[in-house]
Amino acid sequence: MKIAIQGELGSFSDEAARAFLRGCPVVACVTSSEVFDRLDSGAVGGALIAIENSLAGPVAQHLDLLLGRDVFVQREFRLRIRHNLIAAPGVRLEEVRRVLSHPVALEQCREFLRTHPRIRPESFYDTAGSVKHVVESGLPDTAAVAGARAAGVYGGRILRRGLEDDKQNYTRFFLVRRSRRVLPRADKTSIAFALKNVPGALFKALSVFALRDIDLSKIESRPLRGRPWEYAFFVDYLRGDDPAARRALGHLREIAEFVKVLGIYPAAK
Amino acid sequence: MKIAIQGELGSFSDEAARAFLRGCPVVACVTSSEVFDRLDSGAVGGALIAIENSLAGPVAQHLDLLLGRDVFVQREFRLRIRHNLIAAPGVRLEEVRRVLSHPVALEQCREFLRTHPRIRPESFYDTAGSVKHVVESGLPDTAAVAGARAAGVYGGRILRRGLEDDKQNYTRFFLVRRSRRVLPRADKTSIAFALKNVPGALFKALSVFALRDIDLSKIESRPLRGRPWEYAFFVDYLRGDDPAARRALGHLREIAEFVKVLGIYPAAK
Repeated sequence: MKIAIQGELGSFSDEAARAFLRGCPVVACVTSSEVFDRLDSGAVGGALIAIENSLAGPVAQHLDLLLGRDVFVQREFRLRIRHNLIAAPGVRLEEVRRVLSHPVALEQCREFLRTHPRIRPESFYDTAGSVKHVVESGLPDTAAVAGARAAGVYGGRILRRGLEDDKQNYTRFFLVRRSRRVLPRADKTSIAFALKNVPGALFKALSVFALRDIDLSKIESRPLRGRPWEYAFFVDYLRGDDPAARRALGHLREIAEFVKVLGIYPAAK
Repeated sequence: MKIAIQGELGSFSDEAARAFLRGCPVVACVTSSEVFDRLDSGAVGGALIAIENSLAGPVAQHLDLLLGRDVFVQREFRLRIRHNLIAAPGVRLEEVRRVLSHPVALEQCREFLRTHPRIRPESFYDTAGSVKHVVESGLPDTAAVAGARAAGVYGGRILRRGLEDDKQNYTRFFLVRRSRRVLPRADKTSIAFALKNVPGALFKALSVFALRDIDLSKIESRPLRGRPWEYAFFVDYLRGDDPAARRALGHLREIAEFVKVLGIYPAAK
């Protein structure tokens, strides 16, 4: 089964595909819309998308695409994020004066940058893309911050491993498919819903879970397009497709403007 | 009073400062941490920070800084976001083959890019910074997407106005100060809190507002550092510092691990 990811080969999405979907060929897409287009058209059998980082928060665009497209979450994975300083072969740490990476990655390596004040951080569009750039351009004074796999893919050399300040750095990924198949032992559900803009609306919506002792693991809100300051809510709860969960969803549909079940899947351990 | 902003002169934060805090000198800071450092040290009297865009969602880093630093939100503003195609003087629209801007700005001009397939979008760290770059480098085939003010600041020429797909595009800004002064007619409050990770915790927390008919205008969750998959909640409600709101906060403190009042301010109209 071919798997689409957003980002360059060597990115953390690519690392996740190698770790969790071993043997599946990876199709690298520039934009997230392209990932979902390829899934729609059947060009790939699945998409592996980052949905949330334990430090940086949600990947908002992927929440929006899960809501807008006709797809279903089949599996959840958690990848430990390890940042590395990577340069072209021959470059030594003492020579590095500039480091390129995605701003979120740079932000997660603040302590390294603080203790190496001669190295100036600079934003780049992508972690793996920054490795590609420094290696292909043979830059003598510039390094990149990315996952170890990017060094392998582009022939870079790892100058320093484990640059991240906080080792409790994980990214949650969803395997998204077109079919609505629920795997055995599925015990977690992701939904999205919108509410009428009236006092107490969210309180009532959450009551459908609280009254049934259904544990929420996550709530997120996202702006609704064309309705400034109104929101869709994204909720995860720790139940699969059982009678109580189905009753809670039925109850929520009485209250909400819409409810969409984004996926029912086995929780990542 | 000097006002610190994050981003280059000519950015939307700079536009907001000119629109809402006329006559205050603006101090442009590279990072958001620097903005808060300057406020802490007394180098500036206030900071004007983007907190949320009606299409793109929250500015997560600013929520984290409001929670972590000893500051107080004194005013709220809403700026209509208008994107423009800006190039070096002499460059014509027909010659443009590449457009640079912050990825969020490019994402908000999808329709323009779709109808101009010869123009390739490319990510840049900042909207105003992209104008500075194309004008200072005198690039003949490259334009930038940014607010009109950036053209004035860097001597660029506006080739096309109103590039944004959705005219309902607003950014909310907070004026943040060190003093905890509450202005007259303050009728809106922003708070942050964390809950014990038990079923129904958020439902109970929201009950303190619902039981008093206090209307929430916004809820957001953010990961807690060092505690993967646990969250701080950011809530705005449409009440100032009145007895019912104070009782609700007292009630919330009984339930929550911590509650921080980020600010009490007159709601932007």
